[in-house]
Amino acid sequence: MSFVNLKQLAGELGLSSSTVSRAMRDSYEISTATRERVKAVAQLLNYQPNPFASSLRNNVTKTIGVILPQLDNHFFSLAINGIEEVAQQNGYHVLIYLTHDSGEKEKAVSKYLMSGRVDGILLALATGTRSVSHLEKLKLTGVPLVQFDRVNKALQTATVTTDDFASSYQATEHLIKAGCRTVAHLLISESLSIGSRRLHGYQAALRDHQIPYDAGLVLNGRGSNDENLRLITRLLQQRPDIDGIFASVERLALSSYQACQRLGISIPKQVKIIGFSNMETASLLAPSLTTITQPAYAIGKEAARILFHAIIKHKPVLPTQSLELKSELIARASTGSTPR
Amino acid sequence: MSFVNLKQLAGELGLSSSTVSRAMRDSYEISTATRERVKAVAQLLNYQPNPFASSLRNNVTKTIGVILPQLDNHFFSLAINGIEEVAQQNGYHVLIYLTHDSGEKEKAVSKYLMSGRVDGILLALATGTRSVSHLEKLKLTGVPLVQFDRVNKALQTATVTTDDFASSYQATEHLIKAGCRTVAHLLISESLSIGSRRLHGYQAALRDHQIPYDAGLVLNGRGSNDENLRLITRLLQQRPDIDGIFASVERLALSSYQACQRLGISIPKQVKIIGFSNMETASLLAPSLTTITQPAYAIGKEAARILFHAIIKHKPVLPTQSLELKSELIARASTGSTPR
Repeated sequence: MSFVNLKQLAGELGLSSSTVSRAMRDSYEISTATRERVKAVAQLLNYQPNPFASSLRNNVTKTIGVILPQLDNHFFSLAINGIEEVAQQNGYHVLIYLTHDSGEKEKAVSKYLMSGRVDGILLALATGTRSVSHLEKLKLTGVPLVQFDRVNKALQTATVTTDDFASSYQATEHLIKAGCRTVAHLLISESLSIGSRRLHGYQAALRDHQIPYDAGLVLNGRGSNDENLRLITRLLQQRPDIDGIFASVERLALSSYQACQRLGISIPKQVKIIGFSNMETASLLAPSLTTITQPAYAIGKEAARILFHAIIKHKPVLPTQSLELKSELIARASTGSTPR
Repeated sequence: MSFVNLKQLAGELGLSSSTVSRAMRDSYEISTATRERVKAVAQLLNYQPNPFASSLRNNVTKTIGVILPQLDNHFFSLAINGIEEVAQQNGYHVLIYLTHDSGEKEKAVSKYLMSGRVDGILLALATGTRSVSHLEKLKLTGVPLVQFDRVNKALQTATVTTDDFASSYQATEHLIKAGCRTVAHLLISESLSIGSRRLHGYQAALRDHQIPYDAGLVLNGRGSNDENLRLITRLLQQRPDIDGIFASVERLALSSYQACQRLGISIPKQVKIIGFSNMETASLLAPSLTTITQPAYAIGKEAARILFHAIIKHKPVLPTQSLELKSELIARASTGSTPR
C-alpha cells in the first residue's frame, strides 16, 4: 500500500490544496458535494494527513506526555492506568518518557518537549533532580504541566500528592506501638517532597513518643537495588539495636527483606518492617508486608483531570488546584499483625 | 522567557530564513563569520527550532516508539532498560505506548504511528490481538519494525524471543520430576507465539513422560487479575487432583499463589508452582517461587540493535535477522527445591 500526501490528492482532484484541506475538515466554505467527492477520493488513494504538518497548522498534537522516574514500581503502573482513562475520554494519546531517576535524563526530556511535541505534561520528578530550572523553562513555553507524587513545590504549578506527612507519622507510630524503639528510616531523596515530608512525619512521631531522633538511623537509598541491599545490610550489621524499618518506597522495603534474609534476621521477631507500596502481592511475601498504600489510580486520574481542564479551556495550571489524597495503612505480618 | 522562531530570528539578523537555517546547521555555503553571528543571536533570543517543522524537512524524528502490552510486569521494565541503553547510544529518544493488552488499543496506536511520528518501532503484541493486518499496514508505510517476546510470525519482520518451547518443556518436566502427575497450564493467549509455543512445550513434556494431555487442565487467563484469581480458584476447586501449576506469565503465577492462599492449599506440599517471571523478589515470596527467568534486558537490547541497524543503514528489517535467546530455570521452594 502507498499513501498520497495533500498535494498529490489535490492534483488528482484538480483542486487547490487549501480547498482539499478545508473539505477534509468539513469547512462550511466548501459545498457538500465537493466535500463528499474529496473524502471518497482521499479514501481511495489512501490519503494520510501528515501529523507534523497538521500539528504545525493547528498547534494541537492530541497527545500528552507523562514523565516517569521508573517503571518497576506498582505505584506508577496504577497511576498510568488512571491517567490513560482520562486521556482516552478526551481522545488523547499518552506518551511515556522515562528518566530512570536521573536528573540529566529529565533535563534532556524537558528540552525535547520544549517545542510543542505534546499538548500537556504530567510529571513525577526524578530522585536525581536538584534544581527545577529546566522545568521552569519548559513551563514558560506555555505547555500546561501538572506534577504528581514526586513533586517540588518551588515549581509553581498544581500538584497531586498523598498525605505524606500524616501517613509517615502513622507508619512510624505503628512500629512504635508494635514495640519498636530503634526505627531506621529509608528514604530516597530529601530534595523531593516525598523525601522531606516523609522524613518529617517520621521525626514528628518519634518526638511525640519521646524517642530521640538519631541521624545515623536514616539511610539514603537512591542508588540501584544492589547498592541499596549493600547499604541496608551494612546498617543492620553496624546497628544490631535496630528493631524496626520504615521504608519510604516499595523497592527499599523489598531490599530490607533481602538484607534480613541474607543476615538471618527474623521478620517480624527481630526487625519489624513497614513500607509505602502498591504491590498487589504484598500479602504473598514471607512474611506478608505491612504497607502504606497510596491511592495511585486516583492520583493519576486527578492529575490528568487538572491537566485536561487546562488544555481544553486554554487556562493556566495553578498551584491552588493542588490536591492531597489519603493513603491507607494495611497491617500485615511484617509488623507482627495477624494478616487479614 | 519567550522564544523566537526561524522567521523572527532571520528578521532580527536581516538574513533570509534559508541562510539562517543553513548557518545553524553549519553548512559550508555560509561563511564562518555569518555562522558565528547567527548562533550568537540565536542564543541571545532563545531560538528554538520547531521539531515538527524540522522533522518535515529532514524526515527524521530521532525518536523510536515502543508498544507495550502492560507496565506491571518485570519482564517489560527490564526489556525497556535494554532498549533505552541502545537508543541513548544512538542519540534517540524512546516513547512508550501502552495497549493494556487490548487489540483495539493496539490498532489505534498503529494508526497514530502510520504517518511518520517515529523513525522505528519495537513491539510486543497485546494478548487481545487476533489479526495483524493493522501492523501489516504500518509496515507498508516503510517504518522499520521489530517484534520482541510476544510476537506473531505471520508479520514478516525480525523477532527477538526466548526459547519458549524448550523452557516450557523444561518447566513441565521439572514439575513431573518433583512428583506431579496432574499439571495445570495457565496461558494468556493461543494466538500469540508465547501462548502456542509454551503450550506445545508443556504438551511435549507430558507426552514424553506418558502423561495424557487433558484440555480441562489448560486455563486461559487473559483477563484482569481479579478474573484470573476467580478462574484459578474455580479450577482448583473442580480439580482437587491438580498437584502442579505451570504459569506462562508472572501475574498468573501470583494469582495462583493467591488462589492457594484463599483455599488453604499448601505450596509446595499439595500443589507445586513454577512460572515465567523476572521478579527480583521471587525469592521473597512465601514460599519462594521457582521461575523460568528470561534474559529480558538482553532481549530489549538485541531488538533495539536490529532496529537501529535498519534505521541508520536505511535497510529493511528481515525475518532472517530474528534471534532466540535462552531462559534459565531457577529452582526454589515452590516446587520443593531448597532455595539457593
